[in-house]
Amino acid sequence: MRILGVDPGLRFTGYGVISVELKKGSFPLIQLVEAGVIRTHQNIGIAERLRRLYRSLSDVIQETKPDILAIEKLYAHYRHPATAILMGHARGVVCLLAGTNDLTLMNIASTHVKKAVSGHGHAGKAQIQRMIQHLLGLKQLPEPPDVADALAVAIACAHQQRAVK
Amino acid sequence: MRILGVDPGLRFTGYGVISVELKKGSFPLIQLVEAGVIRTHQNIGIAERLRRLYRSLSDVIQETKPDILAIEKLYAHYRHPATAILMGHARGVVCLLAGTNDLTLMNIASTHVKKAVSGHGHAGKAQIQRMIQHLLGLKQLPEPPDVADALAVAIACAHQQRAVK
Repeated sequence: MRILGVDPGLRFTGYGVISVELKKGSFPLIQLVEAGVIRTHQNIGIAERLRRLYRSLSDVIQETKPDILAIEKLYAHYRHPATAILMGHARGVVCLLAGTNDLTLMNIASTHVKKAVSGHGHAGKAQIQRMIQHLLGLKQLPEPPDVADALAVAIACAHQQRAVK
Repeated sequence: MRILGVDPGLRFTGYGVISVELKKGSFPLIQLVEAGVIRTHQNIGIAERLRRLYRSLSDVIQETKPDILAIEKLYAHYRHPATAILMGHARGVVCLLAGTNDLTLMNIASTHVKKAVSGHGHAGKAQIQRMIQHLLGLKQLPEPPDVADALAVAIACAHQQRAVK
């Protein structure tokens, strides 16, 4: 099974595809397939930024063929509503991609994501990066943090799949 | 010139296409091409809802061939952040459609929309419906209000085009 985790944003959208082998009574065997970040520049219009995000993430899906697309659940409270709505634009495009590519969309609670990679619900960005490096046996720290966040969502989703089985 | 006005929402997305003939020193001649509402049911997942919105609005664009896609500018303040972010999902998909169909995306301020159809900046939904009926010479009141709102955005955009010329 392959899971694509996405951390949507209008400037940076992190993504990470992992392959998951579920094992009875044990932790799932998880391996990195591909990860990266899609950047769009502020000096182009939002229509074009979203088009590039859609195209780039479509390409990742075509190449890596995931079964599940995992994103973080929405929070109820945001400090900056305007920023949150713009994030919502990118998140909408990501959800749409699950629809147009027939992927199962999984919403993972933020605390669950942090717990899955750090053992508790309040890990910072740097800690998540180090834990992702360790869990996936990577030679380097996943950079920028958006990539680590996307992989953390995918890994948390894999753990949830195990709980369901 | 044809303008597609859209009032995005996750449950109801109103749309309206108008044809505009700009006339020197006079109000533009505006005619209705097509208008309607795209409904998606709450009992299907968000990925599928956004996919249906994308497909339906794509069909409208293919059939009516607008040059401009007009939506209301984002507010900075919202009463219900979670609702606003979900609206942002639908708005993101609408902006994406401008990108994938090479339409010019125009953001129209809410007060400008109300002014264009009612003469002042604080018109209610029912008043906008009546004014749209009058301005476009429709036999019936445009229903639901989402359709009237979408047409109001398109008409406000037409007036702005005139101001630019």
